Amino acid sequence: MTAVDTLIHSRWIAPVEPATTLLEYHSVVIHEGRILDILPTGEALTTYNASVEHSLDRHLLIPGLVNTHTHAAMSLLRGLADDLPLNEWLNDHIWPAESRWVNEEFVHDGTQLAMAEMLRSGTTCFNDMYFFPDVTARAAAHCGMRANVGLIVLDFPTVWAHDADEYISRGLAVHDQYRGDPLIRTLFAPHAPYTVSDKPLERIRVLADELDIGIHMHVHETADEVDRAIELTGKRPLERLHGLGLLSPAMLAVHMTQLSTAEINQYAASGGHLVHCPESNLKLASGFCPVQTLSAAGINVALGTDGAASNNDLDMLGEMRSAALLGKAVGADASALPAHTVLEMGTLNGARALGIDADTGSLLPGKWADITAVCLDTIETQPVYNPVSQLIYACGREQVTDVWVAGRHLLKERRLTTLEGNDILERTRDWRNRISSG
Amino acid sequence: MTAVDTLIHSRWIAPVEPATTLLEYHSVVIHEGRILDILPTGEALTTYNASVEHSLDRHLLIPGLVNTHTHAAMSLLRGLADDLPLNEWLNDHIWPAESRWVNEEFVHDGTQLAMAEMLRSGTTCFNDMYFFPDVTARAAAHCGMRANVGLIVLDFPTVWAHDADEYISRGLAVHDQYRGDPLIRTLFAPHAPYTVSDKPLERIRVLADELDIGIHMHVHETADEVDRAIELTGKRPLERLHGLGLLSPAMLAVHMTQLSTAEINQYAASGGHLVHCPESNLKLASGFCPVQTLSAAGINVALGTDGAASNNDLDMLGEMRSAALLGKAVGADASALPAHTVLEMGTLNGARALGIDADTGSLLPGKWADITAVCLDTIETQPVYNPVSQLIYACGREQVTDVWVAGRHLLKERRLTTLEGNDILERTRDWRNRISSG
Repeated sequence: MTAVDTLIHSRWIAPVEPATTLLEYHSVVIHEGRILDILPTGEALTTYNASVEHSLDRHLLIPGLVNTHTHAAMSLLRGLADDLPLNEWLNDHIWPAESRWVNEEFVHDGTQLAMAEMLRSGTTCFNDMYFFPDVTARAAAHCGMRANVGLIVLDFPTVWAHDADEYISRGLAVHDQYRGDPLIRTLFAPHAPYTVSDKPLERIRVLADELDIGIHMHVHETADEVDRAIELTGKRPLERLHGLGLLSPAMLAVHMTQLSTAEINQYAASGGHLVHCPESNLKLASGFCPVQTLSAAGINVALGTDGAASNNDLDMLGEMRSAALLGKAVGADASALPAHTVLEMGTLNGARALGIDADTGSLLPGKWADITAVCLDTIETQPVYNPVSQLIYACGREQVTDVWVAGRHLLKERRLTTLEGNDILERTRDWRNRISSG
Repeated sequence: MTAVDTLIHSRWIAPVEPATTLLEYHSVVIHEGRILDILPTGEALTTYNASVEHSLDRHLLIPGLVNTHTHAAMSLLRGLADDLPLNEWLNDHIWPAESRWVNEEFVHDGTQLAMAEMLRSGTTCFNDMYFFPDVTARAAAHCGMRANVGLIVLDFPTVWAHDADEYISRGLAVHDQYRGDPLIRTLFAPHAPYTVSDKPLERIRVLADELDIGIHMHVHETADEVDRAIELTGKRPLERLHGLGLLSPAMLAVHMTQLSTAEINQYAASGGHLVHCPESNLKLASGFCPVQTLSAAGINVALGTDGAASNNDLDMLGEMRSAALLGKAVGADASALPAHTVLEMGTLNGARALGIDADTGSLLPGKWADITAVCLDTIETQPVYNPVSQLIYACGREQVTDVWVAGRHLLKERRLTTLEGNDILERTRDWRNRISSG
């Protein structure tokens, strides 16, 4: 018998790799934070001797969900201004509220609220873009969640920096601070083509290349963005980014609802990744991202919720469902985006986009034990003919019972182990009272 | 002090009538199953003396949700065949499974599973279409839920009847049986234009008129349906229904994803109601129902989940959210279908379509006390700037705590009071094993 840290026995496991695999009555063996083995439970019991053992006999185990586009701290602005178009929402509500309220305390409290919600809905890793990325990184590291913090860059001054050079230098300091951290990674996050000019974008390209980190950017979110760019620069934003050398495997372009066939082919050839945010695109009436066409062109499509101020949640289970439903309708093909494919988008494809798929995104021996358990034995998901179908089409976030990140049990029978839920709620109510009366 | 049955004190109440009203710190007074009064809690405490009092100080009260299109018993086939186009799904999977398995026991057990799910997600009333409507009616009456059972009619034989005449005569017997029942009503439910021929449709029109009941029918669900009808009859289905005199305020046309401007105007002029099923339309890639345009034309648009075999749930909170998100994208207008409008679609508009809006669908004195309470003080729906926005865009079914139908407390702090959840789960697992191995 080999001594190991943890054994999880599960009714079903969808490891995502190999694709579309479904294991029954198997166990995951965890040692020193990583998956050591996955094997039939009968064999596991005679092979391994674990310090901790979990029997999840009504559950499906999946890789922890990877939310590839968030503005975590904006959870404090959830529902502040709904049912408005993107420009009015940003210019008249969100940006004024941010300039009034965002500070280190806001980012800390908002990120904790967001992480509590993400863990409670099965997400183990998020890719963020916001001010004070150092605060986000510290909160995530303290909680034990895997985070990719965006080193945000804008042309105009905010509470975080005065000009593009200062954004970049403060970002580089955060990058240095977390270099080699097992949970925290950094990416450049130039906000969008319409908020960052050529010079900083060129500098970001060179630096991202030197540091071997990604570039996380909103691109072609709305038709209006494209039209305005043509007016101002004579070019569509993707054409401009291509000219600046930014289209490469380092790029994570978010939204991409406005794409010509030539642009799809060009982006596929560049090796860039795409982050699809279906609910945000719907709610802001931004347009439809042609996911099936993009995947068929060979583009790696990951999924993100966007911030809770626009979505209005950080629930990747719900986002996978919306992606599956919308992908069929937009592709005019009910067999498009089947359940297994969407689960891959919500896990492994996100890890690929972030360059961490050797370490997470699927349940394979050698990878970190980033694992989510959902109970399928409820009124809402019975009968179970196909567990992955139930996961995508019927399962709610409340059915997530347990979450591990690098083997650490962060959600335990729905209880957060590294965050104080009541304390977070109290601080959230305080922020609400301040912001409402301000 | 006036003696009454029940007082519910609530942090917020969205009564739906008057439109967009939000009450704070008010109480609902219930007596003999009906709403007697709604007034500030301070006044309620000095005016009424209640046998039972509930203090819901973190909750929003809304009218019970009205699911205006279901096939309740099909919950037993949830997830049996996903990611398939409508015709293949129906012809190769659902219809064969139904002809093999559907009987009175199946309908009873499936309806109980469906009602448990609906009550747990805040629905108090459903409009069903399925075989053995007598069994559905009996199960609903026994549970205490409000149900509108469809007297299904098809041209071809099934376990319920051999030909259209027998469907109609069996339906009329169910109608007679439940005449005057406070919870159960009947509607004719000719399945679809492509499954019911002219003669039975004409008879249904005459009978519906005589009995003063509605007609619940799938219409223009897919482009394929319309194309085939033109091939076979030379007419689009709506044109044929118009010729048969079926377009009237008695009609509840479900789906309606394929509509010309002329058809929209004609349907609006007829006074017919429309039941929008956004998730089913997306999942089966049936097409997009232009809800904003239909509402603007004056058509009453209600909401339905469709059966759990196609959706795959009966969660009206989720369906309202999908309707709001999709309506904005399809209308290319982020201000389309705002939260209050969608709540009205999910409650009062359903009651209107069913002809029961004098008795339910909003929280007004005199109406039955059909009420749903949701707790908004969770990680997922804090902060609360706008309770109705939180309800539509962030709230999950798990936040429904209490449900009353005609003043009877059917869900009490998430516990079903008239259904046995464990027993339902056990029978559901049994059906799953039988159907899978068959």
